[in-house]
Amino acid sequence: MFKYTLEAVCPQTGARAGRFSTPHGHVETPVFMPVGTQATLKSVPHRPFLLEMETQIILANAYHMFLRPGTELVKKAGGLHKFMNWPRPMLTDSGGFQVFSLASLLKVTDEGVKFQSPRDGAYHFISPERAMQIENDLGADIMMAFDECLPADADYARTAKSIKRTFQWAERCQAAHARKDDQALFGIVQGGMFKDLREQSAAEITSLDFPGYAIGGLSVGETMDQMHEVLSWTAHLLPANKPRYLMGVGTPIDLLKSVATGIDMFDCVIPTRVGRHGQAMGLNDRVILNNAKNREDFGPLFDHCKCHTCQNYTRAYIRHLFKAGEQLAGTLVSIHNIYFLVDLMRQARKAILDGRYGDFLTECGVAYQPLTDSVAGV
Amino acid sequence: MFKYTLEAVCPQTGARAGRFSTPHGHVETPVFMPVGTQATLKSVPHRPFLLEMETQIILANAYHMFLRPGTELVKKAGGLHKFMNWPRPMLTDSGGFQVFSLASLLKVTDEGVKFQSPRDGAYHFISPERAMQIENDLGADIMMAFDECLPADADYARTAKSIKRTFQWAERCQAAHARKDDQALFGIVQGGMFKDLREQSAAEITSLDFPGYAIGGLSVGETMDQMHEVLSWTAHLLPANKPRYLMGVGTPIDLLKSVATGIDMFDCVIPTRVGRHGQAMGLNDRVILNNAKNREDFGPLFDHCKCHTCQNYTRAYIRHLFKAGEQLAGTLVSIHNIYFLVDLMRQARKAILDGRYGDFLTECGVAYQPLTDSVAGV
Repeated sequence: MFKYTLEAVCPQTGARAGRFSTPHGHVETPVFMPVGTQATLKSVPHRPFLLEMETQIILANAYHMFLRPGTELVKKAGGLHKFMNWPRPMLTDSGGFQVFSLASLLKVTDEGVKFQSPRDGAYHFISPERAMQIENDLGADIMMAFDECLPADADYARTAKSIKRTFQWAERCQAAHARKDDQALFGIVQGGMFKDLREQSAAEITSLDFPGYAIGGLSVGETMDQMHEVLSWTAHLLPANKPRYLMGVGTPIDLLKSVATGIDMFDCVIPTRVGRHGQAMGLNDRVILNNAKNREDFGPLFDHCKCHTCQNYTRAYIRHLFKAGEQLAGTLVSIHNIYFLVDLMRQARKAILDGRYGDFLTECGVAYQPLTDSVAGV
Repeated sequence: MFKYTLEAVCPQTGARAGRFSTPHGHVETPVFMPVGTQATLKSVPHRPFLLEMETQIILANAYHMFLRPGTELVKKAGGLHKFMNWPRPMLTDSGGFQVFSLASLLKVTDEGVKFQSPRDGAYHFISPERAMQIENDLGADIMMAFDECLPADADYARTAKSIKRTFQWAERCQAAHARKDDQALFGIVQGGMFKDLREQSAAEITSLDFPGYAIGGLSVGETMDQMHEVLSWTAHLLPANKPRYLMGVGTPIDLLKSVATGIDMFDCVIPTRVGRHGQAMGLNDRVILNNAKNREDFGPLFDHCKCHTCQNYTRAYIRHLFKAGEQLAGTLVSIHNIYFLVDLMRQARKAILDGRYGDFLTECGVAYQPLTDSVAGV
């Protein structure tokens, strides 16, 4: 049931506008996906706030749902959509990233990963087959293959070995995926900071003909320049007729630059994380609510912003809420931040459809160089 | 601009239906007022949740707003309605109760109260005149007189002395109140657990012809039986053509019983306080989300409840949110609890208008004895 349509490629850049359909409706790209780690967004009630701001798709974490409340319970509830009452498309990651970054790793073999839960010390084993079972139980519209995630400083030899394992795991994921009619499985390209390994991984993973592809292993500690260099090697190697998802990214500027290389989908916890700490996101700046200058500022977080927060509340009020330690503080700023990224991608899409994404980047203060046809990935 | 109309008195009990108008709209009674302590409800975004559940009026705390962010700031914002963007009626207490219960009291004289802020140790002095200035700055539709609040175990001599002071302060509040056209000042009857002192205080305070009256000094540690005994002495002494407000009460059963004695208005922090701790309120019972039996319960908190939470989420999901320590947990249960009390008063009002509030009490499982005419206060 998953179907992607490439609608336009901006002639000024490699930016793409597209759409894909899922059992829970269609998604227009480029798109930012807010992260609902534990079947809820931190600080933001998804009803009504995410629905009202026209969030098209959210991400949930298989790893977290596996540990708590357990995927069997979610399956009994009728899947994650029903469990949390989210009516629109949803994507689950495989848990790979979290297993490698959050848990106590005990043993990684070609078979899978044995780890200890950081919460209660319980032992768990996740293989590609187990990851597919978990994601099938959760029932998201898009699920991610189980891959090996290395730190940004992994050396060449280790990375070369790892992409081989990630490829084998991708094959096993594809074989084990039991709900191909309902759920689209995306493959993940790895390869660290090494151009030839990225190329090799892209060739291997795309040979499996997944309905969509992600670029993994970024936003793990490398510099912004490194990330965009890897992207410039990799994005155009992914087939033009499939959606391209850059995992775990990022800041507004990261999103805008990545769209120019042909990326379609993003997720990141930044908007709620910095929102809870009183930072309201703008394109190149942040409003720090704690700053004294906001004490008597009866204007919105950002002029002209159409989000629920900026339409209803002042900086002075939100600052008071932070000072008073009230929950609504983090809620309001997180709402603004999520809206900001969701809306930024809406604006990007419009600019692409109008054939002027390069101009849009310039208006946003982002330098860009027109890309060659091959890099644009058309 | 404040105007109260008594619409009906139930022939089976002393229960009253009425309405009052304010600069921010009218309020139908009996009514439950959720408490927005620090210009926000704990856990519940007032937009949209309180608006959607048709909360008619909320309460804010002058004491808390005085300490943080300071009433001068709120005044600059255009008053508390504008500061927190609440478009409907609002009531502020005078801070009396909080000064006597939360702050470090340094000296109480006929002039006023000197106290230290528990937050930063700063010294403050509040007199009736200062309290009126604070409440005038906040600009709520209803403001409360500054009174002396004693503990429930205060003896006769101390209470007798105190009601004298409360009366003198009420007179001074009335004289100092600078915005009589915009804001209705309610007097507060005290008198502890002593019938003759309650009668004396009621006679004194009502002699000042306030547009409404509150019964204070209850819900401070006395038993439920004591509280309802005091109410039975006091409620009918308040003029029938003015609204009657029982401060700081209470549980669903307390509300229902109090309405039967002729009370029109209530406020209490119970719904958000117990909500944050995972207790969903029913008439005579509470759902404890933490209980294991809710783990796989895919039904709502309460069958047939029309609140946002019960219409959208299951016990299993909300329990998961509590287990995961997610903010949405307390939000959802608090929404249910507030709705429950707001709606309970709506149902009570309908029963009163239908002349069957006694039957309604029976249906709710509350024993009642038909009251005499004098007690009914008609």
